[in-house]
Amino acid sequence: METSRPLDALNRARDKKVIVELKNQKQFIGKLKAFDIHINVVLEDAEERVDGEMKRKLGVVFLRGDTITIISPE
Amino acid sequence: METSRPLDALNRARDKKVIVELKNQKQFIGKLKAFDIHINVVLEDAEERVDGEMKRKLGVVFLRGDTITIISPE
Amino acid sequence: METSRPLDALNRARDKKVIVELKNQKQFIGKLKAFDIHINVVLEDAEERVDGEMKRKLGVVFLRGDTITIISPE
Amino acid sequence: METSRPLDALNRARDKKVIVELKNQKQFIGKLKAFDIHINVVLEDAEERVDGEMKRKLGVVFLRGDTITIISPE
Amino acid sequence: METSRPLDALNRARDKKVIVELKNQKQFIGKLKAFDIHINVVLEDAEERVDGEMKRKLGVVFLRGDTITIISPE
Amino acid sequence: METSRPLDALNRARDKKVIVELKNQKQFIGKLKAFDIHINVVLEDAEERVDGEMKRKLGVVFLRGDTITIISPE
Amino acid sequence: METSRPLDALNRARDKKVIVELKNQKQFIGKLKAFDIHINVVLEDAEERVDGEMKRKLGVVFLRGDTITIISPE
Repeated sequence: METSRPLDALNRARDKKVIVELKNQKQFIGKLKAFDIHINVVLEDAEERVDGEMKRKLGVVFLRGDTITIISPE
Repeated sequence: METSRPLDALNRARDKKVIVELKNQKQFIGKLKAFDIHINVVLEDAEERVDGEMKRKLGVVFLRGDTITIISPE
Repeated sequence: METSRPLDALNRARDKKVIVELKNQKQFIGKLKAFDIHINVVLEDAEERVDGEMKRKLGVVFLRGDTITIISPE
Repeated sequence: METSRPLDALNRARDKKVIVELKNQKQFIGKLKAFDIHINVVLEDAEERVDGEMKRKLGVVFLRGDTITIISPE
Repeated sequence: METSRPLDALNRARDKKVIVELKNQKQFIGKLKAFDIHINVVLEDAEERVDGEMKRKLGVVFLRGDTITIISPE
Repeated sequence: METSRPLDALNRARDKKVIVELKNQKQFIGKLKAFDIHINVVLEDAEERVDGEMKRKLGVVFLRGDTITIISPE
Repeated sequence: METSRPLDALNRARDKKVIVELKNQKQFIGKLKAFDIHINVVLEDAEERVDGEMKRKLGVVFLRGDTITIISPE
């Protein structure tokens, strides 16, 4: 892997399934469709999970960057 | 869905019913009428819900961006 | 309602009675006299309410934007 | 009252007795001597109050803007 | 007292003994040697106090502005 | 060691194993692949640890800068 | 001591042993190798202490500025 800037890693994850975790401990899984320099993120086919269990289906969800702690391809 | 930037997803949700969740765990549902780059949001025909139950009707409500965690078309 | 930007909604609420809620759960009701892009707000004939009951009268009150969660015409 | 911008309301309160409340729930009362666009504030003849009771006299006190929730002429 | 801007009040307190309180409730007393527009502060001959009692001597201490709530000449 | 700027230290840690700790007390260990001036960080071969025990393997993980407290080469 | 700006005090502490305290109450001691205007800091020969006791050795550690409350030469 050749990563020079952190956003390059997000770019490589585009259209792939990622897990996004928030400061309030919530966890969202979905296909990464968009992000910007504030790390605002849009997931498609998203669901919220609690302890590995699906809590609710959300379809498209916009996550505000400053609430996000980590993003990782599943 | 073709999304290049996160705000494009919000733009597609304009005039549609969305759910907005805040850092303080509150949940607002209403028609998305406006948003800006700070993710300040205006909902119309809005209501606050607690555990899926309507808590109060608000009509028009302005939500300050930095208090928002997620926005999702219902 | 034609809203293109969130601050337009605040502008339409000018001189009307609004409810303002803060991150610390406090609630202020009063006539919206002024606001700016930081969402700093000034209310006139304001009062603080707790559980729908008037707690104290404040007259003019300046509310710092970054403490505000929602603003809604009553 | 003609208020166009929130800072105008603070300007009218200059040299008057105001109450300032902080995010940590502390309450300061004193004569408003200075403020800036960050809402940094200086009070003179200031005291800290707890539940309406004077807790300590502070004379001049500088309050950092981002800790302030509301400012109201007493 | 003629104060036009909040930082003028800090300037007048330079080389005087001030009390600085932080968001985490800690209290530092010392001679105000330097400050900047972020309200980063340097105290000399500083000590941390708890409930009016000296907890530890610190000599020179740099306090990061965004952690400060109030500054007051003792 | 000759360090003039903090980011130089991160640069020297590039491609080395580092420990990253977050404000929410979580701990991530992995190879430092990228960082930027916001201290957004990308780790490779990453894992989350709790009390020194591996909690989960993450592969590539993007950590948002404003959630990070410390970064240290292991 | 002649201090005009807060960062001058940090500059004088360069290559000296300092104590750095974080918002999460953690305490790091080490040689100050670098800092910037965000108060991002790099310590060398660093250790984390709890109640004056060494908890762990860290070698080089990067501390993100916005998590820091105070920095003081030991």
